[in-house]
Amino acid sequence: MSGVVPAAGTISLARGVPSPDLLPLAELEHCAAAAIRRDGRVALNYGGPGGYGPLREWLAERHGVRPAQVLATPGSMLGLNMLIAELVEPGTPVGVDATTYDRALRSLRAAGARLVPPSEPARVRYVQPTFHNPSGETLGFDARVALAEAAIRDGTVLIEDEPYGLLRFEGEPLPTVSELLRERGAGELAVYSSSFSKSVAPGLRVGYLVVPETLVARLEARILATYVSPPVLAQAQLHAFLDRGLLEPHLARVTAGLRERRDALVEALAEHVPGATWTTPAGGYFLWAELPVDAAALLERARAEGVAFEPGAGFAAFGGAERAARLAFSWESPGALREGVRRLGRLV
Amino acid sequence: MSGVVPAAGTISLARGVPSPDLLPLAELEHCAAAAIRRDGRVALNYGGPGGYGPLREWLAERHGVRPAQVLATPGSMLGLNMLIAELVEPGTPVGVDATTYDRALRSLRAAGARLVPPSEPARVRYVQPTFHNPSGETLGFDARVALAEAAIRDGTVLIEDEPYGLLRFEGEPLPTVSELLRERGAGELAVYSSSFSKSVAPGLRVGYLVVPETLVARLEARILATYVSPPVLAQAQLHAFLDRGLLEPHLARVTAGLRERRDALVEALAEHVPGATWTTPAGGYFLWAELPVDAAALLERARAEGVAFEPGAGFAAFGGAERAARLAFSWESPGALREGVRRLGRLV
Repeated sequence: MSGVVPAAGTISLARGVPSPDLLPLAELEHCAAAAIRRDGRVALNYGGPGGYGPLREWLAERHGVRPAQVLATPGSMLGLNMLIAELVEPGTPVGVDATTYDRALRSLRAAGARLVPPSEPARVRYVQPTFHNPSGETLGFDARVALAEAAIRDGTVLIEDEPYGLLRFEGEPLPTVSELLRERGAGELAVYSSSFSKSVAPGLRVGYLVVPETLVARLEARILATYVSPPVLAQAQLHAFLDRGLLEPHLARVTAGLRERRDALVEALAEHVPGATWTTPAGGYFLWAELPVDAAALLERARAEGVAFEPGAGFAAFGGAERAARLAFSWESPGALREGVRRLGRLV
Repeated sequence: MSGVVPAAGTISLARGVPSPDLLPLAELEHCAAAAIRRDGRVALNYGGPGGYGPLREWLAERHGVRPAQVLATPGSMLGLNMLIAELVEPGTPVGVDATTYDRALRSLRAAGARLVPPSEPARVRYVQPTFHNPSGETLGFDARVALAEAAIRDGTVLIEDEPYGLLRFEGEPLPTVSELLRERGAGELAVYSSSFSKSVAPGLRVGYLVVPETLVARLEARILATYVSPPVLAQAQLHAFLDRGLLEPHLARVTAGLRERRDALVEALAEHVPGATWTTPAGGYFLWAELPVDAAALLERARAEGVAFEPGAGFAAFGGAERAARLAFSWESPGALREGVRRLGRLV
């Protein structure tokens, strides 16, 4: 894969991977060395199961929780899997959106969860209120309050997954549902998952969980048995990046780059794919398009034309979404996105 | 914890953790930056499930296998857990030594393995032929051949765990049992697990598996579902360290430091703990001592005197080892080791 149209000509609107030109290479080069100079004897050894202390403190302050409630994991998928192992037994009713993150669906199914739609009460509910994968949509304030209040009414543990939260192109940030739960004295229902893979660099593998006090010891025991210690050096390196104030200028550059890509995608869809409909995402990596044709059949023909995307059905918890597609605008250049959509339009 | 006697006075002979003065701080500082300069666009992004290509190639050459057979994992415990999930179902007979690595025992039990002693045929067998944890012992050539031939006779998959293999103080390296299996045309039974946590730095979290071709696709699918991608940057950093020829001089320094600690421990045991017996390890982190008293009772009193160690019973697969102790000499300075053993001797 490459940030420009590769020789083979395949344009990927499939994977939620950042374009290499959006990675803060020079900054992380300095931070890698700085983390070892500053704290190498700690950062290069085993750490506690929750990860590098100063990073946990930085995140705890940002989220308004105690540092012990923050568990920095080797990527957020592993954290999500630890949560699922802890909270879901075969038959546990787990609420999910009709279309939702495919890897989360697979993990929940593998754990034997009984998936139920949002309208039904559930023991656990998996939500992505901000820059949803795959839909790209963001819940407004009232919908967040409604989520929190429904969780309190039903005693549902909410797993709020927000890896794209920092990648906002327009509009004002909203409180997380976890914050709304804590404000209402229901912090024991608030589980939050995020990552720096989408906002800084996937190769660091720094995800994190913010969990209620009641879950800390259980998750730490599971971490010790599963991987002993997370990659402390990468966490120290990321902490140096955050501590030096490099996050905000980096996010300004990344969101500008992603917005340009989103705009190219949206303009190309409007121009080349008549009959397609979508909600323009205000951030994140993905646009969810309803197509006038079957997406799986289109993908087969698109591959022959050197274009890849994710058909919607893979994200559908209860079936359907056959005419939908998840289009990622994070990987390709604006020019490649336009060319990819032009080819799709010819096929539609 | 600290490399010298800490203020609180607790001397730890318990944890298998390297002393910070054995970590290659300056070298890794340079390699961190070099890895990003050289290959940052790859190293800072997601990688394939098997890890950073050049590291897999380096390891494949060292082990005489194809790069696809090498899976670099975020620490070897996670790799071992992936293997156990793949190979062990409830009731699977798994051969283990009478005393063996406590975390492996816990993972095998959690997977429902039926643990059987080495004398019984098994579907899977977990062995540590080199610098065994906890015994510190190393199998000779003939014993390795016998292990390989028994595995071939019974069709047993051997999981050979060798994280301490590079830390040899004296004597010549021996072929791994995996190599002996491959030489005998039984590579499908050879599963090898190792790590750079003990030999370079735990904070990198770079473990690796060398597996038969038949297991590659299954493990890669499991990795994708569990953690998507390992920490590629740390693997690229380690590869820069290896590629620049820094491993051999570093190992010379580390083994000298560990040998000095082992010698201090052995001399102190001989001087201060009459009635204790042990086999002096030729490498690794641990010495296994048979004591003239109950180890758990001794530990309770030792803690009050500011000394910690691991009682043998936690490593015993089938009970016993009540009078044994695992003494780690990796963490404390030679002086602290002597003082710790002096205190133990007073209590014995």
